[in-house]
Amino acid sequence: MAVLRTVHPIEAESYRLLREAVDTARLPARTRDVVERVVHTTADPTWLPDLVVDEAALAAGADALAAGAPLVVDVAMVAAGITRYPSTCLVAAPEAARLAAEHGLTRSAAAIRLAARQHADGAVWAIGNAPTALFELVRLAEAGQVRPALVVGVPVGYVGAAESKAALRAAGLPQLSNRSARGGSAIAAAAVNALLYGDPLP
Amino acid sequence: MAVLRTVHPIEAESYRLLREAVDTARLPARTRDVVERVVHTTADPTWLPDLVVDEAALAAGADALAAGAPLVVDVAMVAAGITRYPSTCLVAAPEAARLAAEHGLTRSAAAIRLAARQHADGAVWAIGNAPTALFELVRLAEAGQVRPALVVGVPVGYVGAAESKAALRAAGLPQLSNRSARGGSAIAAAAVNALLYGDPLP
Repeated sequence: MAVLRTVHPIEAESYRLLREAVDTARLPARTRDVVERVVHTTADPTWLPDLVVDEAALAAGADALAAGAPLVVDVAMVAAGITRYPSTCLVAAPEAARLAAEHGLTRSAAAIRLAARQHADGAVWAIGNAPTALFELVRLAEAGQVRPALVVGVPVGYVGAAESKAALRAAGLPQLSNRSARGGSAIAAAAVNALLYGDPLP
Repeated sequence: MAVLRTVHPIEAESYRLLREAVDTARLPARTRDVVERVVHTTADPTWLPDLVVDEAALAAGADALAAGAPLVVDVAMVAAGITRYPSTCLVAAPEAARLAAEHGLTRSAAAIRLAARQHADGAVWAIGNAPTALFELVRLAEAGQVRPALVVGVPVGYVGAAESKAALRAAGLPQLSNRSARGGSAIAAAAVNALLYGDPLP
């Protein structure tokens, strides 16, 4: 699915200022796209050393999206931040609430379990909020129940976020994540948008 | 409009960890609510010295929301992050696109101009994305065309974000903002949610 869009002059100017502030010229293409869009989105260059990036995984994710792969997100804010590609978000589905109550899961984790039944193979997953959602996705992958094209795992918070991202990396899945407890929907959406849009400057 | 909700155990644990990491005990009540929810949302304690907070303005905003005041936001991501209160977001309205084209505005700024016609008095405004939206709101307020109960002004980016927040403070409006170029939808939503929810711990 090709994403065509006009780059607004303000976005272009932001990227020029960003490249004066942060040296990204030697990064591989997809890595640079993702790192720059996260810094552009946050105006916070401390994201550069925090991200854990794998060029091959990002390229696989970009290829999957270009081929129209399903995109699954954990919360509505991530979906709202990705305006040019459809996504699946089941956290508000009644079935997620029922599954959560039955199995003592968070609704976020239950929504991931549901989505994995629909999209077992080749989806791109973007988790921007709930560590429990990422833990569940890693568990399902390790159990052979889901085979993601890419996991963008950047949940945020003092309870379990850094640990869930470490678990993602330890599982050997194709991934983008970060080391600290920071994260969030804007980071997850920025990473996916970077894979959809590429470099906004000519 | 009273917002009743159950505090999830993970949220409660997050607040306990946060209070070990950041000393907020001596802050006034609404200031503490906002500062803590922003740090909780970002897992980034550097927000504490970055925010520019006015207890009286925050109390006025909280009172306005409790009385059912309109809430206007600049982008869908802010709306998606405020799940317990209805908001107005006109950035995708065809009339905003038309107004933007006619007057050479960004769509974000045009959407604010439209919303100000609908909600000239006593609304709470939350701007999490576009500096041009905040500049337009400040201009309208200085022209006497809008009288906000509170402006949560935390747009992000290398182009104009810090300047738009400085303009907000210079205008003397009841405001919450921050000094740096950082910001974003999650910060805007967290601040509004803090005013709706108050202290989540007993």
